Amino acid sequence: MKDKAREWFENLRSKLISTIEVHENARFTEKKWEHSGRGGGLMSKIEGSLIEKGGVNISTVSGQFSEKMQKRVPGAEKDPSYWATGISVVLHPKNPNIPSMHFNTRYLSTTKNWFGGGIDITPCLDYTKETKIFHIDLKNMCDKYDNSYYPKYKKWCDEYFFLKHRNEPRGIGGIFFDYLNTESDNSDFLFIKDVGMFFHDYVDKIISRYKNNDWSESDKYAQLIKRGRYVEFNLLYDRGTKFGLETGGNIDAILMSMPPQANWE
Amino acid sequence: MKDKAREWFENLRSKLISTIEVHENARFTEKKWEHSGRGGGLMSKIEGSLIEKGGVNISTVSGQFSEKMQKRVPGAEKDPSYWATGISVVLHPKNPNIPSMHFNTRYLSTTKNWFGGGIDITPCLDYTKETKIFHIDLKNMCDKYDNSYYPKYKKWCDEYFFLKHRNEPRGIGGIFFDYLNTESDNSDFLFIKDVGMFFHDYVDKIISRYKNNDWSESDKYAQLIKRGRYVEFNLLYDRGTKFGLETGGNIDAILMSMPPQANWE
Repeated sequence: MKDKAREWFENLRSKLISTIEVHENARFTEKKWEHSGRGGGLMSKIEGSLIEKGGVNISTVSGQFSEKMQKRVPGAEKDPSYWATGISVVLHPKNPNIPSMHFNTRYLSTTKNWFGGGIDITPCLDYTKETKIFHIDLKNMCDKYDNSYYPKYKKWCDEYFFLKHRNEPRGIGGIFFDYLNTESDNSDFLFIKDVGMFFHDYVDKIISRYKNNDWSESDKYAQLIKRGRYVEFNLLYDRGTKFGLETGGNIDAILMSMPPQANWE
Repeated sequence: MKDKAREWFENLRSKLISTIEVHENARFTEKKWEHSGRGGGLMSKIEGSLIEKGGVNISTVSGQFSEKMQKRVPGAEKDPSYWATGISVVLHPKNPNIPSMHFNTRYLSTTKNWFGGGIDITPCLDYTKETKIFHIDLKNMCDKYDNSYYPKYKKWCDEYFFLKHRNEPRGIGGIFFDYLNTESDNSDFLFIKDVGMFFHDYVDKIISRYKNNDWSESDKYAQLIKRGRYVEFNLLYDRGTKFGLETGGNIDAILMSMPPQANWE
């Protein structure tokens, strides 16, 4: 499963990058980085006419958890060895009619093995109709695997992407999941692939649908203010960011999710 | 001392605002806010041609500390009552030749009484000569009270305003101090007044000196990137911000320090 997962994330990365480049006048630039343990990653970044700043990061790393981490991670209590592979994507479009889009999936292996990940969307202008469609489609995709997935993972997403200090959600939610154990059958891997393709198709569809829509100065300002909230979330709450910064990870990869520009009133 | 401290901070606020308005084409707008306990504050904000975004906040509040806070604050171990008055200023200039300037002083009263505060400066372009002058002047001011102040408070400032995850200082430092106990004589209050006037005069001088200097697009971009670091510091490390957000303080007052705009590469 390690090889299959890694190959899938690499495959998905190529597909996403190709699809975004079809819409764009710019290309992704690549930057390899090495992990302090073994392995490393490949960061791909675009600054284009549609995606003002976007990043696609894949990595496959292994090593030994610190004692602090051993207590937090399932299956690492007695053996600190881990192996992980994953893909992480953040897109900050220039056009405020197109929402910021975030996605990641990963496979982690200690003495246990599991998948985790999520998709969530952050619009800055009215997105009521699209929100309805997004959640119906997500539910239909989840229901193919387990009727409990959508309500459970939507709730997890809503609780996670919430700015407590402002008492407001970061965006319109999505799904957020972890600890999908694949040892029994192949269905979790199929789910992971479906989540990835859902995100791919969503990005493609939403860019196509809104890329030619005009916007006003006040629309753009609304986007920049919303991006300020995005920054607040990432630095105050995001587990991945906090974990990365605390453990001395690759700064560029950790802060890839930051918007190109953000404003505060 | 409570009344004397409060009056001084109010006096300093008026002086600072008047001096900045002398340089500006804009005026400060005022907004009162109430504290969840007793008292409240007055936020003054400017969006001008020189100060792209600036805030001057004074507050005088009292109440009872939570149990968690009682353990952290001197003199509150047995009696949770506190009374506090203070002034806090952050200026983000439009012209990248003028640094961001930050200052605060406060007087806290539990079963003990003390002053705390600091000044620090964040330039984004070469500021070597000014840095030298700034630190010489700060040292001379501190030495009037105690030769140990400058080295001790400069070190505290350097350690505090440091972005560990980037291994870089936020700016060129300054002084940072706390627990100045005023019960013996009046010299701490005189020091606090001097720190306030030092900041006032510094703002006045630096604005006058650089307000007509031109800048390039890349100078402005350097400023926006530096402001991104400022945002990272405030959300990841700043004690005041963290404390305010955790205890449900006034969001606008807590995040007054955020720049109007920040960029990430």
